[in-house]
Amino acid sequence: MIVYERLIRFEDVDPAGIVYFGKHLTFAHEAMEEFFSALPGGYPELVMRRQVGFPAVDVRVQYHQPLRMGDRIRVEMTVQRLGRRSVTFHYAMKMVGTGVLAAEVTHIVVVSDLSALKSSEMPGDIRALLEQHRVAVG
Amino acid sequence: MIVYERLIRFEDVDPAGIVYFGKHLTFAHEAMEEFFSALPGGYPELVMRRQVGFPAVDVRVQYHQPLRMGDRIRVEMTVQRLGRRSVTFHYAMKMVGTGVLAAEVTHIVVVSDLSALKSSEMPGDIRALLEQHRVAVG
Amino acid sequence: MIVYERLIRFEDVDPAGIVYFGKHLTFAHEAMEEFFSALPGGYPELVMRRQVGFPAVDVRVQYHQPLRMGDRIRVEMTVQRLGRRSVTFHYAMKMVGTGVLAAEVTHIVVVSDLSALKSSEMPGDIRALLEQHRVAVG
Amino acid sequence: MIVYERLIRFEDVDPAGIVYFGKHLTFAHEAMEEFFSALPGGYPELVMRRQVGFPAVDVRVQYHQPLRMGDRIRVEMTVQRLGRRSVTFHYAMKMVGTGVLAAEVTHIVVVSDLSALKSSEMPGDIRALLEQHRVAVG
Repeated sequence: MIVYERLIRFEDVDPAGIVYFGKHLTFAHEAMEEFFSALPGGYPELVMRRQVGFPAVDVRVQYHQPLRMGDRIRVEMTVQRLGRRSVTFHYAMKMVGTGVLAAEVTHIVVVSDLSALKSSEMPGDIRALLEQHRVAVG
Repeated sequence: MIVYERLIRFEDVDPAGIVYFGKHLTFAHEAMEEFFSALPGGYPELVMRRQVGFPAVDVRVQYHQPLRMGDRIRVEMTVQRLGRRSVTFHYAMKMVGTGVLAAEVTHIVVVSDLSALKSSEMPGDIRALLEQHRVAVG
Repeated sequence: MIVYERLIRFEDVDPAGIVYFGKHLTFAHEAMEEFFSALPGGYPELVMRRQVGFPAVDVRVQYHQPLRMGDRIRVEMTVQRLGRRSVTFHYAMKMVGTGVLAAEVTHIVVVSDLSALKSSEMPGDIRALLEQHRVAVG
Repeated sequence: MIVYERLIRFEDVDPAGIVYFGKHLTFAHEAMEEFFSALPGGYPELVMRRQVGFPAVDVRVQYHQPLRMGDRIRVEMTVQRLGRRSVTFHYAMKMVGTGVLAAEVTHIVVVSDLSALKSSEMPGDIRALLEQHRVAVG
């Protein structure tokens, strides 16, 4: 598990006063970028130089509690499933302080060669990192 | 069913050259705003004056084909389920021209009083509009 | 002059109930994409295939009137100055209906080769299009 | 002067591989939210409870160097001018490490009562904070 903390800011909030429903994917993506910072050069090196990317094939968001400007969330990210070319990431977004679960994102990606936009073998260093954060799903 | 056409623009596309995975929720929300334009004053009247909103409780996106800048999509929006206080919207996002299904969004919302941010009874004009676009799911 | 019409949507509006100050650049960029649709393949062809881009070097926004969800604006875009490698675009954003000027954007760009991210000679077809929409500034 | 550090992330970057020209206003706004965190309850308290806001009337961005994913910027924010109801903020965005100036934003706002969306007297605690960060402009 990696943990990414995030302040809810003005631009995250919609005219109804709560976080816009698409922003949870932004929070998840930011956590994923953080996740890959364990590799040399981090996510930018992967995407820009190595041309390895993780296009989503399936995403589910469950919204348990509305989030408001000034809230702080703690995104707990794990690997729920690790296939040959696909990965299922899970993000539990909890309120800092109370620990209340505000939202969950399940995010299935396919490891891809971005120059061809085709699925590709999973590079060894990436698989090793994913293995480290894999959890047993009961 | 209502249909909303949308051009994929520069800002929709990420550094990997395809539409960012969160943008599909933007397309869905735009279609939903279009949907409610059938009521007097449309979506702005609902949200701003009547304080009726539709916070999401569950969203699923299935990405079938990457979208690129310059593509045109046709969002076909239907009501898949109509509960007492909740609605399931479905959006099929198809390539204009070929009709290829690029993505699908399933979007469950709860009709809410935005001033209290609590679920509320569904106003009659909203229910009537939703009924009109309800489809039988096989 | 080219004219681009735009509906102000939910996602354009901030928690204070008016269009977020950065969104005016989105409206300007959309108008610019529309502008280049006069060339074969439009803006996507320019950026993706020809690798010709227009990075901004200087932008000014004057906010005259707040914009709200449901407003419709008419963006009138002109070329105010045409240099050897630089262009000054001007966007007058007016309320559809009343014609009230809500905002103005002045946008100076440098024609660039995106593969090297360096300024480049202005291709002939681009210069010809810009000349067509050039206005005398008094 | 307050200093706000920011990592350039995937979503900040456009298909041309550099930070989108509107994102600099996001960075400036984030720094401004940080600035007001010196007051009890910070920016959310101001906007949501006290209904005090700072709508922009004039913004200028000068882009000196393109920013890329993985870059870290240091936003140095000062008060350049303090009027009766208006404030001019200045943001120097520098590369962490080299100190190279990547962009500058000049941001003129009017202190406003958000419930009426009208300019208002500047509350004393806000004026005091602004005074503290005021710089002489040569």
